[in-house]
Amino acid sequence: MPESVNTYHSIVPLEWLGPHERRKSLAGWSSFVYRAIDRRDGKTYALRRVEGFRLLHEVAFAAVEKWVRLSHPGIVKLKEAFTTKAFGDHSLVFVYDFHPGAQNLYSAHIAPDPMASGPRAPWNLGHPNAKPIPEDTLWAYIIQVAGAIKAVHDQGMALRLLDVSKVLVTGKNRVRLDCCSVLDILSWNPTLSLELLQQEDLIAFGKLIYVLGCRDVNALEAAPKAIDTLMRSYSSAINNLAYFLLSKSNKKKTIDEVWVKLAPRMATETASLFSYADTLENQMMAELENARLVRLLAKLGFVNERPDFSREQRWSETGDRYIIKLFRDFVFHQVDEMGNPVMNMGHVLSCLNKLDAGIEERIMLVSRDEQSCLVVSYKEIKSCLESAFQ
Amino acid sequence: MPESVNTYHSIVPLEWLGPHERRKSLAGWSSFVYRAIDRRDGKTYALRRVEGFRLLHEVAFAAVEKWVRLSHPGIVKLKEAFTTKAFGDHSLVFVYDFHPGAQNLYSAHIAPDPMASGPRAPWNLGHPNAKPIPEDTLWAYIIQVAGAIKAVHDQGMALRLLDVSKVLVTGKNRVRLDCCSVLDILSWNPTLSLELLQQEDLIAFGKLIYVLGCRDVNALEAAPKAIDTLMRSYSSAINNLAYFLLSKSNKKKTIDEVWVKLAPRMATETASLFSYADTLENQMMAELENARLVRLLAKLGFVNERPDFSREQRWSETGDRYIIKLFRDFVFHQVDEMGNPVMNMGHVLSCLNKLDAGIEERIMLVSRDEQSCLVVSYKEIKSCLESAFQ
Repeated sequence: MPESVNTYHSIVPLEWLGPHERRKSLAGWSSFVYRAIDRRDGKTYALRRVEGFRLLHEVAFAAVEKWVRLSHPGIVKLKEAFTTKAFGDHSLVFVYDFHPGAQNLYSAHIAPDPMASGPRAPWNLGHPNAKPIPEDTLWAYIIQVAGAIKAVHDQGMALRLLDVSKVLVTGKNRVRLDCCSVLDILSWNPTLSLELLQQEDLIAFGKLIYVLGCRDVNALEAAPKAIDTLMRSYSSAINNLAYFLLSKSNKKKTIDEVWVKLAPRMATETASLFSYADTLENQMMAELENARLVRLLAKLGFVNERPDFSREQRWSETGDRYIIKLFRDFVFHQVDEMGNPVMNMGHVLSCLNKLDAGIEERIMLVSRDEQSCLVVSYKEIKSCLESAFQ
Repeated sequence: MPESVNTYHSIVPLEWLGPHERRKSLAGWSSFVYRAIDRRDGKTYALRRVEGFRLLHEVAFAAVEKWVRLSHPGIVKLKEAFTTKAFGDHSLVFVYDFHPGAQNLYSAHIAPDPMASGPRAPWNLGHPNAKPIPEDTLWAYIIQVAGAIKAVHDQGMALRLLDVSKVLVTGKNRVRLDCCSVLDILSWNPTLSLELLQQEDLIAFGKLIYVLGCRDVNALEAAPKAIDTLMRSYSSAINNLAYFLLSKSNKKKTIDEVWVKLAPRMATETASLFSYADTLENQMMAELENARLVRLLAKLGFVNERPDFSREQRWSETGDRYIIKLFRDFVFHQVDEMGNPVMNMGHVLSCLNKLDAGIEERIMLVSRDEQSCLVVSYKEIKSCLESAFQ
C-alpha cells in the first residue's frame, strides 16, 4: 500500500475478501476500493482504483468533468479522477464521497452471509437476508434510483453501470448510485449513441427491480419465474413498472414516462419524507439546547475554583462572584434528608436553562458552613457570571 | 378570558386585530384562535373557538373522530373537539397541534403589511410581500397541498375548507392545512354527496394556485387576467395543473389525476427533500456530541468540590479520586506564561472528548501547589470518574 497517492494519505482497503472469494471485475478490469484522507481538505474519501489501466484517450476525461459537476442526493458524488503509478502499475483512480458503514444492495439484501464482507453501520444490520425486501423499502429504492437516472439523463449523460453491486445503501431505506463515470473512461467509445445508452439504463433499472424483488442476481435467467415471484410479493404498481422497463417496444422509452408511472405512489413517498424531515427538525431543536448548555457549563468550569482567584477580593465570601460558587453547589451538590448526594440530571438541566434565560425566579443559596444564606434571582446570577468574563 | 377550558389552561389569544380590521368569519360564524396548555400532557395546543354555536346534531361529531385519527405531514393535526360554556356563551372548540410562529398563506404572501398581525418566526419574515412567490416555493406548496388532499380523499373524507387563510406556513416552504373538520360540524348536512364535496376541494385547490400565483384573493373575479398573470410568471406545468383543476368537465376529476400531472416535477421535489434530510442528519451528528458532553460535564460537577467528600480518604491528595479534581483544573484552569487565565473552548472540548472515549493518551496533572505531579491516561481518569458513581 503506498504512503500516499496524489494528495491522498492514510490509505486503507475497504473490502474484505474471503479466502474463496474472487475479486469482482468492473467491465473486465480488476478494481479495488480504499478509504483515504485528502490533505487539501482533511476529509475522508473513497478511492476506486482500476488496476493496470493505461489511458489511451485523454478526451475520455471530458466525461469526468460532467460527473464532478453533478450533485444529486441519489448519486455518490465524484470528486475527481486521475491516473497514477503510485500503486506500482498504471492505475486509474476515481475519488468519491465516502459514506461510512455503507454496503451495496447485493450485500444488504441478497448475499447469503451479509457479515462476511466486513463491518457496517447499524442500519445495515437490520436486514435479515432471509426475508424479502418490504414493499415500502423497495419503493423507496425505486424512487431514489429513478430520481438519480432522471438527473443523469436530463444532463445528457447515461449511467452505463447499474446493478445491485453498484447501488450503495447509505442509510435506512436510503440509496445512492456508485461508480458513476467509471465506464465513460473504461469503455470509452464516441460512436455509441446517447439514446441507446439511456435505453440500456432503463433496462438495467427494470432488471434491478426483478433482482431485488426475487433476491437473486440471476433472477431473469428464468424470466417467467421471476415475473411470477415479483407478482406474488409486490403490488401491481411495482410489477407494472418493472415489466414496462423490460418490455420490448419499438417506441423509445424515457425516464419521464417512468415518473408518470410512479405518480400514484408519490403522495405516500413525499408524505413520509416530510414526516422524516419534521422528526429530524424536532430532534435538532432539542439538541441545539445541548450546545447552549455545554457553553454554559464550560463557563462555570472556567470561573469556579480557580486557585489564582482565591487571593482576589471579589471571590471572597463578601464578593459578588462568591454567588457563582454557591450556585454551582446548588446545582450539583444537592443532598437528601439523610445527607446523601443526590444526582438529579433534571434538576441540573432545569437550573442551567433558567440561568441561561436569566429569569426573575429567586433561589436561596446556602454557604457551606450553613451559617449564612443569600436569596438571589437567576437574572442576578447570570449577570455575575457575565461580569466574571469581562 | 376564562382561567381554563376543559383541561386547557394558560389561554392566550393568538390573533392581533388592528383597530380597523374585522374578524373574518368561518362559514358565517365568528371564530377566535387561542394558544393553551393541556394539563394532561403539558403540551401547547391551538384552540379554535366558534362563538355562539349550539350543537344540534350530536351525530356531526362522528366526523371529528375520523379527523383525529388522520396523521399527515400536510395537515394540522386535530386533537379533539368539544362544546363549552366556559367563554360565557355556547362555544364549539377545536383543539389542534400548535405550530409556533406559523402564519397563513394570506399573511405570508398576500397581505399588504405582513407585520400587522403580530410576531412570527424567522422563516416567515423572509417573504417580502411585494415580490411574487418563486416557482420553487409555489411547487412546494402545491405538492404538499396535493398530498394532504389525497390523504383526506383516500379516507373517504373531504376538506370542504381550503383557501389562503386556511393553509398555515409552518416552516420554510412548508405548509399544513388548517381548520380541518370545522365545516363537518358547522355545515353538517348528511344529504351532501362525498363525491360533490371532493370535486369542490379540487376546484378550491385550483383557485388557491391562481390566488397565490397572482397574489390577489380576488384574482378569479377577472379570470382571463388571472390566467394571463399566471402564464407570464410560472411554468406551463403549473399553468396546466391550475387550469385543469378549474376547467369545466362532465367527467369527474380525481386527486390521483392531479398526481399524474405532478409527475414531471416529482424528481426535483424528492431530490430536494432527500438533500434536506441529508443536511439535517449531518447537523444532527454534530449536535449529538453535545448531549454526550453535557452528561460528562454534569458528572464532573456532581463529583468535584463536594464538601461532604472532603472528609473522605479517597478524596485526599493520596486518594484515587483526587485525580478527577486535578483533571478538572487541567481542563478549565489553564494559564498562559504570564499566569493569566486562558479560556479555550477547543481545549475543553478536546479534553472531554478524549475522556469520554477513554483513550490511552497520557497527560501530566500538576497539583495546585506545583509540588507534585501525576502522569495518567484518559483511560485511567475515565475509570476514576466511573467508580466515583458506584
